[in-house]
Amino acid sequence: MSRLGEYPARNGPPPERATTADVRAANLGVVLRHVRGAAPCSRADIVASTGLNKATVSSLVTELIRRGLLRETTSVGGRIGRPVTMLVPDGQVYATVGIAVGADQLTAVAVDLSGVVLLSWRRSFAEYAQSTGRAVAVITALAQRVASAVGNRGRQVLGLTVGVPGLIDPDGTILRSPGLGWHDIDLRGRLETALRKPGYPITVENEANLAVLAEQRYGPYAEVANLVYLTGGTGIDASVVVDGRPLRGSRGYGPQIAHLPLTEDGPDCECGRRGCLEAVAGVPALIRRALPVANEDLSRADLLPYAQEILRRAEAKDVATLDALDETGRWLGGGVSLLAHLADPELIIMGGHFAPLTPWLSPAIQTGLAESAGPVPVGGCRIAPATLGTESAALGAAARVFDHLESGRLPA
Amino acid sequence: MSRLGEYPARNGPPPERATTADVRAANLGVVLRHVRGAAPCSRADIVASTGLNKATVSSLVTELIRRGLLRETTSVGGRIGRPVTMLVPDGQVYATVGIAVGADQLTAVAVDLSGVVLLSWRRSFAEYAQSTGRAVAVITALAQRVASAVGNRGRQVLGLTVGVPGLIDPDGTILRSPGLGWHDIDLRGRLETALRKPGYPITVENEANLAVLAEQRYGPYAEVANLVYLTGGTGIDASVVVDGRPLRGSRGYGPQIAHLPLTEDGPDCECGRRGCLEAVAGVPALIRRALPVANEDLSRADLLPYAQEILRRAEAKDVATLDALDETGRWLGGGVSLLAHLADPELIIMGGHFAPLTPWLSPAIQTGLAESAGPVPVGGCRIAPATLGTESAALGAAARVFDHLESGRLPA
Repeated sequence: MSRLGEYPARNGPPPERATTADVRAANLGVVLRHVRGAAPCSRADIVASTGLNKATVSSLVTELIRRGLLRETTSVGGRIGRPVTMLVPDGQVYATVGIAVGADQLTAVAVDLSGVVLLSWRRSFAEYAQSTGRAVAVITALAQRVASAVGNRGRQVLGLTVGVPGLIDPDGTILRSPGLGWHDIDLRGRLETALRKPGYPITVENEANLAVLAEQRYGPYAEVANLVYLTGGTGIDASVVVDGRPLRGSRGYGPQIAHLPLTEDGPDCECGRRGCLEAVAGVPALIRRALPVANEDLSRADLLPYAQEILRRAEAKDVATLDALDETGRWLGGGVSLLAHLADPELIIMGGHFAPLTPWLSPAIQTGLAESAGPVPVGGCRIAPATLGTESAALGAAARVFDHLESGRLPA
Repeated sequence: MSRLGEYPARNGPPPERATTADVRAANLGVVLRHVRGAAPCSRADIVASTGLNKATVSSLVTELIRRGLLRETTSVGGRIGRPVTMLVPDGQVYATVGIAVGADQLTAVAVDLSGVVLLSWRRSFAEYAQSTGRAVAVITALAQRVASAVGNRGRQVLGLTVGVPGLIDPDGTILRSPGLGWHDIDLRGRLETALRKPGYPITVENEANLAVLAEQRYGPYAEVANLVYLTGGTGIDASVVVDGRPLRGSRGYGPQIAHLPLTEDGPDCECGRRGCLEAVAGVPALIRRALPVANEDLSRADLLPYAQEILRRAEAKDVATLDALDETGRWLGGGVSLLAHLADPELIIMGGHFAPLTPWLSPAIQTGLAESAGPVPVGGCRIAPATLGTESAALGAAARVFDHLESGRLPA
């Protein structure tokens, strides 16, 4: 008999505490999340769905109403002669703000707790992105105008989340954003200073993770626990969702897929190597294949008109365009297969400019996936367009604030 | 104002229940885990570390002692004149059994709750692996002999976990195990029938996930939340640990890394393509580079003597051997970089026959990683050998049973 004692046994993850206060906070979040998903619903529905006992649910609901997070509505129950008081999220007290930063524009939304979009604004940004000082000033001014508009409608801002393309560390520092030309910028810290510690939490997160959150929350993909979301802008970013949560890695900034090596003799990539996924399958590579743009610099251009022209030609069954989409789709399939070998997603969501082109890209992506599959093929991996258009990252940013709420971190 | 109502808002993951019974079961697990990691420890230590209150800890400890999971020891406190009753896991009542199935041999271990290895057996298996009927019979007979030996030492079997190389679905069906030549075998179901529903749970899991659990539990890597474990046998399997948990994907069987495409003109792979990771960087590929084995079939051979010969030559600084290790390490680095782009591990653990060769492989792996890195390089990713040798998967299998216990699923 030997004892497994050569290496000291470790604790593993720290033991989870389950104090009474923690359980109550968690259960407040559970009730909030349940009502958001099932509203309108009764206290009895909550009891049935959460397994919490009746007295606990009653006490939790009372607290949530008092805090302005839930409200009662007139009965809508179908039972004759038995009016039932139903609960819905209270949209009158709080709102959350999401801002998505793109190379060409800023998108801002404010959403109340009942899911009403209070405002959705855009403003041009291309002329400010080059200078981070001016960029921070413009984002700050937009956040202040949104907060003020939200205040004018009688709502208190619960939190601000800013979505940015690129590698963002968990503290909200932008390590590298090729699309914006930024690196090593403590955006969260600078916004907090510029907004003079506004009393609500500010977070900065990768736009792909926020876009996928929006698709899960407001789109048709809530039930899909394992998926890949591909952004299609100047670069290619991905959110890889595993068991419902985005893969973040040891440094917290998520997958880097733009420079996965796909072919040894592909075109030059901005990173200095050849044949990276972005160089062979990005939206600019597609545009170069499909349209006569040999002399144009696409790295800071607004790609929307080009993408619209490709869509028009594809709909007109232009052969050269269909070939360009097919070739691009195959490379995308080869790149996605690398993700599929590891994370085996059920679904690939095509975001950005890829979204409207999905019907033409999808068959070639499936071919590329099959060509690169391992011995156990990627089975039934669906490919579908993103559904929320250019607002998705901003909506996801606003939704991220609710996530904090529903994990039990309520406003003070 | 628009309402986000085109798509119905979904519930997201089902709300977590936090009933009194659930909280108690979870807390029993928390106390068990704490004592395993910190034994010997006092009730006061548990109160301090878990945040549970004194009366709750007292009641939980009483139940765990009554159930034979913890026991009290004589005081070992250093305080003069103040004997303190300490708690340790009770090794007298229960044991867990792990069996690792390899192409050439079976390894079985039984471990009690105090971390004592009650037995560690091996038996040859190469002649049985070809026929799944005989293979199941041999594994069953081994499990019965181990259970009987455990019983003779007065312990009750808490559970049996069987580790197998290849793709295993969450129900314990082996989808494909190239090393064993098995596919679509409901190993868990067949063992349960052959063992006549033995009254303890049987699980079947990928050997790489179990080996990494053993390294986390009994090796020096408990604190590393994001790591990759590479097996080095006839094939290459990986366990990719993200936030402390192995990546499993939508179908639950984890990453397939053996056939990641690394080069367009590499050697033929058994999968029918060329240049897969396994074909350029597997242990057989290394052996073919380093030793004169051109005519030998390595697919069912015991690779240990070859690996030992390579180790001997490397230690003797044989130039051809060092070149073979360098080339293999570069390909391994290229393959691992694909994992690193996605999961950004802090650590790569080299298992199987790779383990003793790590000092020679590691510099070339780092070079391969750097060559394939994205614009934000893989920072400080360590490469280290597995520490538990050929028993690792079986030890991990036995440890998996404790995991169930410590998540609150106690024996009836």
